[in-house]
Amino acid sequence: MSKLRVAVLGAKGRIGSEAVRAVEAAEDMELVAALGRGDALETLAESGAQVAVELTTPASVMDNLEFCVRHGIHAVVGTTGWTDDRLAQLTTWLAASPATGVLIAPNFSIGAVLTMKFAQLAAPYFESVEVVELHHPNKVDAPSGTATRTAQLIAAARAEAGVGPAPDATTTALDGARGADVDGVPVHAVRLRGLLAHQEVLLGAEGETLTVRHDSLHHSSFMPGILLGARRVVTTPGLTFGLEHFLDLN
Amino acid sequence: MSKLRVAVLGAKGRIGSEAVRAVEAAEDMELVAALGRGDALETLAESGAQVAVELTTPASVMDNLEFCVRHGIHAVVGTTGWTDDRLAQLTTWLAASPATGVLIAPNFSIGAVLTMKFAQLAAPYFESVEVVELHHPNKVDAPSGTATRTAQLIAAARAEAGVGPAPDATTTALDGARGADVDGVPVHAVRLRGLLAHQEVLLGAEGETLTVRHDSLHHSSFMPGILLGARRVVTTPGLTFGLEHFLDLN
Amino acid sequence: MSKLRVAVLGAKGRIGSEAVRAVEAAEDMELVAALGRGDALETLAESGAQVAVELTTPASVMDNLEFCVRHGIHAVVGTTGWTDDRLAQLTTWLAASPATGVLIAPNFSIGAVLTMKFAQLAAPYFESVEVVELHHPNKVDAPSGTATRTAQLIAAARAEAGVGPAPDATTTALDGARGADVDGVPVHAVRLRGLLAHQEVLLGAEGETLTVRHDSLHHSSFMPGILLGARRVVTTPGLTFGLEHFLDLN
Amino acid sequence: MSKLRVAVLGAKGRIGSEAVRAVEAAEDMELVAALGRGDALETLAESGAQVAVELTTPASVMDNLEFCVRHGIHAVVGTTGWTDDRLAQLTTWLAASPATGVLIAPNFSIGAVLTMKFAQLAAPYFESVEVVELHHPNKVDAPSGTATRTAQLIAAARAEAGVGPAPDATTTALDGARGADVDGVPVHAVRLRGLLAHQEVLLGAEGETLTVRHDSLHHSSFMPGILLGARRVVTTPGLTFGLEHFLDLN
Repeated sequence: MSKLRVAVLGAKGRIGSEAVRAVEAAEDMELVAALGRGDALETLAESGAQVAVELTTPASVMDNLEFCVRHGIHAVVGTTGWTDDRLAQLTTWLAASPATGVLIAPNFSIGAVLTMKFAQLAAPYFESVEVVELHHPNKVDAPSGTATRTAQLIAAARAEAGVGPAPDATTTALDGARGADVDGVPVHAVRLRGLLAHQEVLLGAEGETLTVRHDSLHHSSFMPGILLGARRVVTTPGLTFGLEHFLDLN
Repeated sequence: MSKLRVAVLGAKGRIGSEAVRAVEAAEDMELVAALGRGDALETLAESGAQVAVELTTPASVMDNLEFCVRHGIHAVVGTTGWTDDRLAQLTTWLAASPATGVLIAPNFSIGAVLTMKFAQLAAPYFESVEVVELHHPNKVDAPSGTATRTAQLIAAARAEAGVGPAPDATTTALDGARGADVDGVPVHAVRLRGLLAHQEVLLGAEGETLTVRHDSLHHSSFMPGILLGARRVVTTPGLTFGLEHFLDLN
Repeated sequence: MSKLRVAVLGAKGRIGSEAVRAVEAAEDMELVAALGRGDALETLAESGAQVAVELTTPASVMDNLEFCVRHGIHAVVGTTGWTDDRLAQLTTWLAASPATGVLIAPNFSIGAVLTMKFAQLAAPYFESVEVVELHHPNKVDAPSGTATRTAQLIAAARAEAGVGPAPDATTTALDGARGADVDGVPVHAVRLRGLLAHQEVLLGAEGETLTVRHDSLHHSSFMPGILLGARRVVTTPGLTFGLEHFLDLN
Repeated sequence: MSKLRVAVLGAKGRIGSEAVRAVEAAEDMELVAALGRGDALETLAESGAQVAVELTTPASVMDNLEFCVRHGIHAVVGTTGWTDDRLAQLTTWLAASPATGVLIAPNFSIGAVLTMKFAQLAAPYFESVEVVELHHPNKVDAPSGTATRTAQLIAAARAEAGVGPAPDATTTALDGARGADVDGVPVHAVRLRGLLAHQEVLLGAEGETLTVRHDSLHHSSFMPGILLGARRVVTTPGLTFGLEHFLDLN
């Protein structure tokens, strides 16, 4: 079987250099180009790349994707800063190149994506649900964006299933003891030296609890998701937003 | 909205008496009959029950279900001892009463069912997976039936996705250190005073792990699943085997 | 070896009846009296009890203890409501009966006592520390008294060792996300159906974390501590406050 | 306050270079020398070092320590390979330099040392105890040396306290399900991609469990222990074996 020809854009960055290493280590892939700031995009076309892994910056991502789509090169995009305008522009480009696929994912950690999915699936079946996220103490926001998003998804799943508020008889509490309220779901943020990024969804019903926990111990945790994205985007024309659409979850 | 009329068969047993209590506590249900050993089945028909919760013994379950199906009473069955012959017999009865539904579930704990389902869904995306189950020390088998079943489901999901064996460089090991091998999935059984029934599925990929843990702290954990079964079986004609078919997992 | 002769006061209460059962089941003990409300204290003296387990109410505990001390019966006391005045009174009685011992313990769970002790011991060696307590949703206070006490002990141990504030770069937070502040230690309270009483102390330093977790799954968790108290109080004259003094922790 | 003058031997190695970085970052320390293979030991004496952190190899550690002790330089030693003969030799050298201290520690992770200590302290008070260790899949031995040592310490503490075997009613088990038997304590070894080094001691009594868990997420976890050793060894003449002796655990 011929190998998938993959290029990395933003290859000098922290995540980009991990991606270069991961593509090189993948038995079913061949790294055909690794572009850093200032390298000419023509190199990409000349390399024969089938997929470009785009890990640059909001300032350069649109030019890069226009080039990729025009040349029929599929793209897996980790760069952030997506607005409705940008997505509309990208969709227009893709309409003119209907065989080309682009995957944009806010989170390439398969574990994080599955945690959110499982939390949503389980939410309607448990009276109680809370989220605890734990991170290194240099993090500036609390709770994490992932935890907030997870709580919102849980709240929406409960609402859709007609589940009422979780029971809570608290009448006397210290400020903050019961966590932050995200759409009715308590979210607690722990900051601890030694940790990286961790999240726990706790669900409780009569006599039992279910816990889904994701531990990210190294930023290389994005690599399996990026590789999976590269393998699948080549047979998924058009725009896909969110890695969860590339996971078989039925 | 009129309440669902529910009867309990085996109402004097440990699980049965919990079921009586749970049906009485459910706002959308009315307990119309609670039969113990020796009570006449005609009581069931006279009670106007729409659903019978069957929690008796293998010796009486077939007579009870024949009566239910003949009278168009749906059934939710926790009694064990199902063989192919028994299932075939039940299917025949149901064919003659096509509007009637029967749910048989080996495990009514929604948490246990979801743990197995999530383990299957996640299995293809992680290089490594192991199962740790923890129970009270009076348990006679190790690992638990649930853990063995979970490991088998994981192994099957990995095989279907073409995932190879999990990495393991162990060359020197004490006997038993790496657990029991269930279809290639290591399963570890902890026995600890103070525990009831707990299971953890650990999945690992580069830089991240995902853990799904189910804690059963009281045998009342079966009740939400039994009530959910009763609510859904009335609109699900025919035989359903396994509570997972009544959960929306897409 | 002759068995320890134990009486239970408050034998009809929930904890008291558990204590009766636990004393009966202990191979080295003999239950010689089980007094409920209205039973005459003389029964206690006549029973030949060496130790009385006092599990009544603040209204009757002082009379009971005066009787015990006067008759040289050691006591293990779980009843709450201790004030300085009451303790002074008890000390006076004990001075007149110098061979008699009384153990008063706010918490008879050995696991809870050890969790607090270990948290104190470890606190000076970790930059970061937070407490997460998890309880059933019928609990009215948050955080739990035990969690608050644990955080205070941790804060005191850090202060004594000259450890500064834990690192925390949070600049943007939802209200409550970072928990309640107990003497500088963040405490998070989770309320979940299915749980009973659980507490986790998380300590973090560069590259590692240490977690001490206590799970109380049944109120019978007080029994081992009560039995241990009964065994040791007979050789510990005077007043002892806190079960930790009867544990060998060096 | 003047800073502690610290030298690192083996400064080019993986742990050594971490130690260089950690000493430089410590506000109360000054890095006065960083010696690699081939650097002359005289540099050490000339640097005015009060403490040498010895992180070389069994082949060079004895020469290095002879030099240190002769020059009154205290030493913190992470190098392995200690035999009775080597310890006896070192003790002889120290006898001739009675103000000098040497700390040898098989494990500089404070979390690992505390986990072992807490396991020992708690062991007599719980009927059941098991150890679960979890490591990356490149590890060649199972269980880990730390887990084996922890189980041995637990077994010894139970024996000393007269605690009998843990309850276990298992009659039917798959091979390996109940783990490895280390002096009567079951030890389970999990191997999972994404993990580094983790250990959990589970203790169970009636109605409650106590869990002590150590997570090592980065090899920098040795640094706080090495720095603590350096601070304390200067006031602890003679040979100390084991970091636990430098922790206040009463």
